[in-house]
Amino acid sequence: MIIKEILNRRSAREYKSKEVPQEYIIEIIKAGQFAPTACNNRAIEFVVVRNQKTKNNIFEIVGQEYIKEAPVLIISVSDTTKTNCPIQDLSVASENMFLQATALGLGTVWKALKKEFGEEKKIKKLLGIPEQYTVINIIPVGYSKKEPEPHTDKDFDDKKIHEERW
Amino acid sequence: MIIKEILNRRSAREYKSKEVPQEYIIEIIKAGQFAPTACNNRAIEFVVVRNQKTKNNIFEIVGQEYIKEAPVLIISVSDTTKTNCPIQDLSVASENMFLQATALGLGTVWKALKKEFGEEKKIKKLLGIPEQYTVINIIPVGYSKKEPEPHTDKDFDDKKIHEERW
Repeated sequence: MIIKEILNRRSAREYKSKEVPQEYIIEIIKAGQFAPTACNNRAIEFVVVRNQKTKNNIFEIVGQEYIKEAPVLIISVSDTTKTNCPIQDLSVASENMFLQATALGLGTVWKALKKEFGEEKKIKKLLGIPEQYTVINIIPVGYSKKEPEPHTDKDFDDKKIHEERW
Repeated sequence: MIIKEILNRRSAREYKSKEVPQEYIIEIIKAGQFAPTACNNRAIEFVVVRNQKTKNNIFEIVGQEYIKEAPVLIISVSDTTKTNCPIQDLSVASENMFLQATALGLGTVWKALKKEFGEEKKIKKLLGIPEQYTVINIIPVGYSKKEPEPHTDKDFDDKKIHEERW
């Protein structure tokens, strides 16, 4: 039996204006902090944005209407003086956060920062995040306008499983 | 309330010899396939190793006694002709697999491949994985010898949360 949050987690790209209680945001971040990190470095920190002006500024950098629309944005950062694997660590923590948000009836999506367009640099500057931190995504959190359709076996492909070797 | 598998997931580095049913491995891989991928590329495939000789060969490359000891190793690979974000995709899928294994009472750990030591290349050669695929870790799956201690609030640090900006 697949974990129900894994089945129910779907990317949300339209959000209701309904507020998200701060204790839900804390639970989501807690789930992120309980994720494994390389050599248990625990070097991830979190910026929580609710201010509309800041959200508008982030939208100017990364686009996507949902960045302005979602009541909360979570920006996770990893301290590269403490880990060689910031991308892996942030990705794993993001998934825990997605799943915990799902458990709370909330929608999320991975808005990737395009490093080649300088988006990471601009976001760090905007939020005052020190140079040594890596940022790979913005996670909007809110109540999705659409009812998510759970994963089923139609999303499973057993031809992608190779026994013993390729 | 944090998802119980997020609380209970801990890295396992010693495994019992007890076999893992194939249907559990399928469930774990299914959870991996239900993870989000960049632009929904769904470019991840999986090699499942149970053969002791192959496990011994993998141990020769990456070390760690648990590589020989765990009844099953799962090697996830991402097709770089279909995604620009193989590390993110594989990391996110790995976390789903860790959590699903936890739900099944199984232990896992992220054994990273050190690219700088040529470990990724050697693993791909050993398993016949084509050049275009990225591999970042080996996931042993089995019954942990140790009872895992769930995460609690002692693993949570609210000083790592920054409101509105750094």
